[in-house]
Amino acid sequence: MQKNVAQKLIANHLVEGEMTPGSEVGLTVDQTLTQDATGTMVMLELEAMGLDRIKTELSVQYVDHNLLQTDEKNPDDHLFLQSAAQRFGLWFSKAGNGVSHPVHQAHFGRPGATMIGSDSHTCAAGALGMLAIGVGGLEVAMAMAGQPLYVEMPKIMGVELTGELPEWVSAKDVILEMLRRHGVKGGVGKIIEYHGPGLDNLTAMDRHVIANMGAELGATTTVFPADGAVREYLDAVGRGDEYQELLADDGATYDIEDRIDLSTLEPLIAKPSSPGNVVPVAEVAGEEVFQIVVGSSANPGLRDFAVVAEILGGQQTHSQVSVDINPTSREVLADLISGGWLKALVQSGARIHQSGCMGCIGMGQAPASGRNSLRTMPRNFPGRSGTEEDAVWLCSPETAAAAALTGRITDPRTLTQSHSIRYPHPDLPERFSTIDDMLLAPLPPDEAARVELVKGPNITSLPDSEPIADHLEVPVLLTMADNVSTDEIMPAGSRVLPYRSNIPKIAEFSFTRIDDTYPARAKEAEGGHVVIAGENYGQGSSREHAVIAPRYLGLRAVIAKSFARIHWQNLANFGILALEFDDPADYDAVSQGDIVVLDDLRASLERGKSVAATIGGREVPVHHRLSGRQVEMVLAGGRIPLTAQNS
Amino acid sequence: MQKNVAQKLIANHLVEGEMTPGSEVGLTVDQTLTQDATGTMVMLELEAMGLDRIKTELSVQYVDHNLLQTDEKNPDDHLFLQSAAQRFGLWFSKAGNGVSHPVHQAHFGRPGATMIGSDSHTCAAGALGMLAIGVGGLEVAMAMAGQPLYVEMPKIMGVELTGELPEWVSAKDVILEMLRRHGVKGGVGKIIEYHGPGLDNLTAMDRHVIANMGAELGATTTVFPADGAVREYLDAVGRGDEYQELLADDGATYDIEDRIDLSTLEPLIAKPSSPGNVVPVAEVAGEEVFQIVVGSSANPGLRDFAVVAEILGGQQTHSQVSVDINPTSREVLADLISGGWLKALVQSGARIHQSGCMGCIGMGQAPASGRNSLRTMPRNFPGRSGTEEDAVWLCSPETAAAAALTGRITDPRTLTQSHSIRYPHPDLPERFSTIDDMLLAPLPPDEAARVELVKGPNITSLPDSEPIADHLEVPVLLTMADNVSTDEIMPAGSRVLPYRSNIPKIAEFSFTRIDDTYPARAKEAEGGHVVIAGENYGQGSSREHAVIAPRYLGLRAVIAKSFARIHWQNLANFGILALEFDDPADYDAVSQGDIVVLDDLRASLERGKSVAATIGGREVPVHHRLSGRQVEMVLAGGRIPLTAQNS
Repeated sequence: MQKNVAQKLIANHLVEGEMTPGSEVGLTVDQTLTQDATGTMVMLELEAMGLDRIKTELSVQYVDHNLLQTDEKNPDDHLFLQSAAQRFGLWFSKAGNGVSHPVHQAHFGRPGATMIGSDSHTCAAGALGMLAIGVGGLEVAMAMAGQPLYVEMPKIMGVELTGELPEWVSAKDVILEMLRRHGVKGGVGKIIEYHGPGLDNLTAMDRHVIANMGAELGATTTVFPADGAVREYLDAVGRGDEYQELLADDGATYDIEDRIDLSTLEPLIAKPSSPGNVVPVAEVAGEEVFQIVVGSSANPGLRDFAVVAEILGGQQTHSQVSVDINPTSREVLADLISGGWLKALVQSGARIHQSGCMGCIGMGQAPASGRNSLRTMPRNFPGRSGTEEDAVWLCSPETAAAAALTGRITDPRTLTQSHSIRYPHPDLPERFSTIDDMLLAPLPPDEAARVELVKGPNITSLPDSEPIADHLEVPVLLTMADNVSTDEIMPAGSRVLPYRSNIPKIAEFSFTRIDDTYPARAKEAEGGHVVIAGENYGQGSSREHAVIAPRYLGLRAVIAKSFARIHWQNLANFGILALEFDDPADYDAVSQGDIVVLDDLRASLERGKSVAATIGGREVPVHHRLSGRQVEMVLAGGRIPLTAQNS
Repeated sequence: MQKNVAQKLIANHLVEGEMTPGSEVGLTVDQTLTQDATGTMVMLELEAMGLDRIKTELSVQYVDHNLLQTDEKNPDDHLFLQSAAQRFGLWFSKAGNGVSHPVHQAHFGRPGATMIGSDSHTCAAGALGMLAIGVGGLEVAMAMAGQPLYVEMPKIMGVELTGELPEWVSAKDVILEMLRRHGVKGGVGKIIEYHGPGLDNLTAMDRHVIANMGAELGATTTVFPADGAVREYLDAVGRGDEYQELLADDGATYDIEDRIDLSTLEPLIAKPSSPGNVVPVAEVAGEEVFQIVVGSSANPGLRDFAVVAEILGGQQTHSQVSVDINPTSREVLADLISGGWLKALVQSGARIHQSGCMGCIGMGQAPASGRNSLRTMPRNFPGRSGTEEDAVWLCSPETAAAAALTGRITDPRTLTQSHSIRYPHPDLPERFSTIDDMLLAPLPPDEAARVELVKGPNITSLPDSEPIADHLEVPVLLTMADNVSTDEIMPAGSRVLPYRSNIPKIAEFSFTRIDDTYPARAKEAEGGHVVIAGENYGQGSSREHAVIAPRYLGLRAVIAKSFARIHWQNLANFGILALEFDDPADYDAVSQGDIVVLDDLRASLERGKSVAATIGGREVPVHHRLSGRQVEMVLAGGRIPLTAQNS
């Protein structure tokens, strides 16, 4: 049977399951990527698992998110991550080295490989013909420990590209066109595979732009073939020998088909406050602009900065506009200097910031209240910029540069007439700068074994969690309605996020949006407790803290009408028993303070799906939906103790 | 009589008083400088005064402190300051243009001129033969309104420089030597004037380093003569025509004399946590280092960065050290690019940050807990870096570069042997880059008059304050002990500072360190209130919010045993009556809740020093020490309404 690229990647890494959309497959993981905002918890998980050394081909810990260092928490985390990378055998990319996805692509990207990363834009590596998927932290930790990744087999959506992009239209406009067509849920449950003759005119970095923002479509990932453009890219970063062709078979088909004629595209822009609000730039031209930001993993290539420099051409930008430039990496910065582009940007009035994610994840660069900010970044959810009433638009570097000159949203195609600017074709070097010095190689095993983890005062170990008891007799501390999200279980935001390496501290925020007496009552109920919920409990973000923190405070079981998928998996991963009412009507009879009794629990979990419970003295039939593997986790107190016990 | 440089500067601007140390002199102010952290309040004061257009030769509003933009407050302030500069006729230096003191020196510094600034390092301009003094915001506002600056005539301390600095020793070591000798109070009540043949080998930028950190000696200011080095500097920034020689007369004398033979100096370093803890670098060599930061107004010259670049020479820096580089300004950045130095710094592993004060005022770049950070900055007070348990050392660029290479505190003189590095003499351009585009010139008066102030949601106008009543009958809301500081009246810190443009909001923090029920009780006591204090009330920082905020909550008078000087002036400036007990023993009889009655108040203030008061029904004789000018202020409700009423 003819296979497309995605099917080949999956088939080559399949260790469990069938490649039928919707059924679970287990895949070997070649590489992993972690960044600092999620990586500290992953390293604490490796510590808790007692892992000696990672078992992947290659794992890299990046520091690119928390670079502002407004107090000691960020730099303490950096030192911790550096020591953990040394201890467990990871590569380490120092603060200031650059944004993980493009740096990874340049130094480690390998056609045909699989990668998972604790960052939703991990999918960017699909640009090189990799199968790269963003996942939760413990999944990455388990992959480092040698376990496969389990995912639902997605449908493959083939997007045939034809034609060539017109002047003033670039790769960002291609993915904005996809978002215009399909919206932010259009990719859910799908791998998007680009193919067709239009690929000939898209470089690997152009493809990175498109693959990266596949995350905004909700796609499992995006893949491109490994073809001549990939070879050219690998040559340009000095790794031509790692090129391996990976093409779809002639006649390969797709579960879903779409097609874009690149020559028909025009400059597009996502209006506030969703990447899905896409309209032609021409339709919103004239709106005042107060900031542009160029950078992030969504437009990380040297070309994306050089084109801005050449459009501005050293002309002073509009006096009301803050022109913020975030060079992707040390290497891009070095090439911007060599090419004369950095000087031109400085002369045009740009603020040159350190290399990293910066304003893309709301670490600085917040715009003024209600003032339009045009960014080459991937996301513009409300408030993500740090500004309460923000107005962030997403666009190409060309469109951002045009606004910097005019102070208004401007279709860049009009610059030819209004400013006599020809569309620039920056003369990129054949060989990009590659600077390896700030990528610290893994230590040899004997040296690594002697490394002590360096923990600042805000970094605590992952708390131990004991096996589930055979007899639970504990109170109900909360009864909750339907659709409780993980944002309600464990809030995010600048007040809470700095404590992500500190479970005892972050636990103080558990459930406080629902009932701020919960943490104190949980600590009082020393023998553990239960919470009760309605339908779809734990919807939303995948954050692990929404199970680790309540578990730390004594949560042993959740009894609900139903659960959201990822949170339900996370509960099992961390040894909390997820039970469902046999009869949803029983939910109504439960009150806060009722005592829940689960007797002969370990044996009944091993025996089957039914569990005998009494709540408030009344018998209430409940059941679980755990697989055999998950039952083992819960019996062991979670996936980490289970792994430790099996190793 | 032969005059020294300081005496000439004062004599040329004297409009009131005698030049006898200790007596008050009034001086005309040619230029002013405000930065964003203090400037928003100054602009609100100009608005409250109803000023139409500034009356100084030249005033400049810089944006260099609050550049992180973690939320909308910083960028909203930037837009407000830009609109205020346009409205009142100031120059405006946009965010990213650079640090105020060196940018001001390059574009506006003029030998022989006077300048005041709402920043303690304003004194740096003494490098060009200016008399430049850091003061509180309202003093700057008043200077813009055309009023003289009143200061106590300082003593002049002459420091004769002889000899030439050895290799690996630079200007920073000269000021560190002064701090080693005299400590952080050694300059109080003094102007420090450098003279002698050693000056021949110090460039204007070297002198800027020395003058800037005169603030750390507590000096009123520092002056250098305007000589050939100043001419050379003005030529290099394209303003040679503004050169005017200003030398001490032959045979001029000084109130105090000191002498430094530059050839005897060695590399020095200030240990944590005071600029006065100075020791030779050799004495502390070997201590581990985790961060170096190069930048700030204390080492702002192109040479200070170039020397670091040449010492590192593109070699990778130590893997545990974060090398943070803050190019002073867009212009220094442009010259670092042109000279090849920026590329070398990037290759050595430096993190290149936006131009501004950054970590020098704790806006980012916080070091890890307890880990040594070596900085070319002027201050290392505990916690100023943003890290609770910090260990910040102050040193020259040479010493910082040595630590970046070795990962330890290292006497840079040893690099010749250990690393075969010759002491670099960077080949600086004869003409520095000067980029005027981001310095927005004042608008013509007719255009300026039409500008509306742009106020984000956190920016409120300065509240009106009415004339003092003729009959006050108000409760005592607080009775306080001796030595209450302005830090207790109005705290600083990251929780409070963002509200500096918002008096109603910041008022909520008034006196809360003493009694957190004060703000609520003050609002209840609608007709105003009084507070009672012991000796030395209002010591410490000069912050104006310590009077404006309680005044907003209804504080009408303070009755104390005695007052600290600056706070006492601030009370009068904002129309609060400062009264002293005739008999300090009466303090003991006053209780919170007592009613204070001041009758026939306006007439008695006009009549003399005594005021008839009853407190809790008992007659208590009190008096004031206000000058006639200050009585007028209090009667008018403060200096701003008085100015408005006289204009």
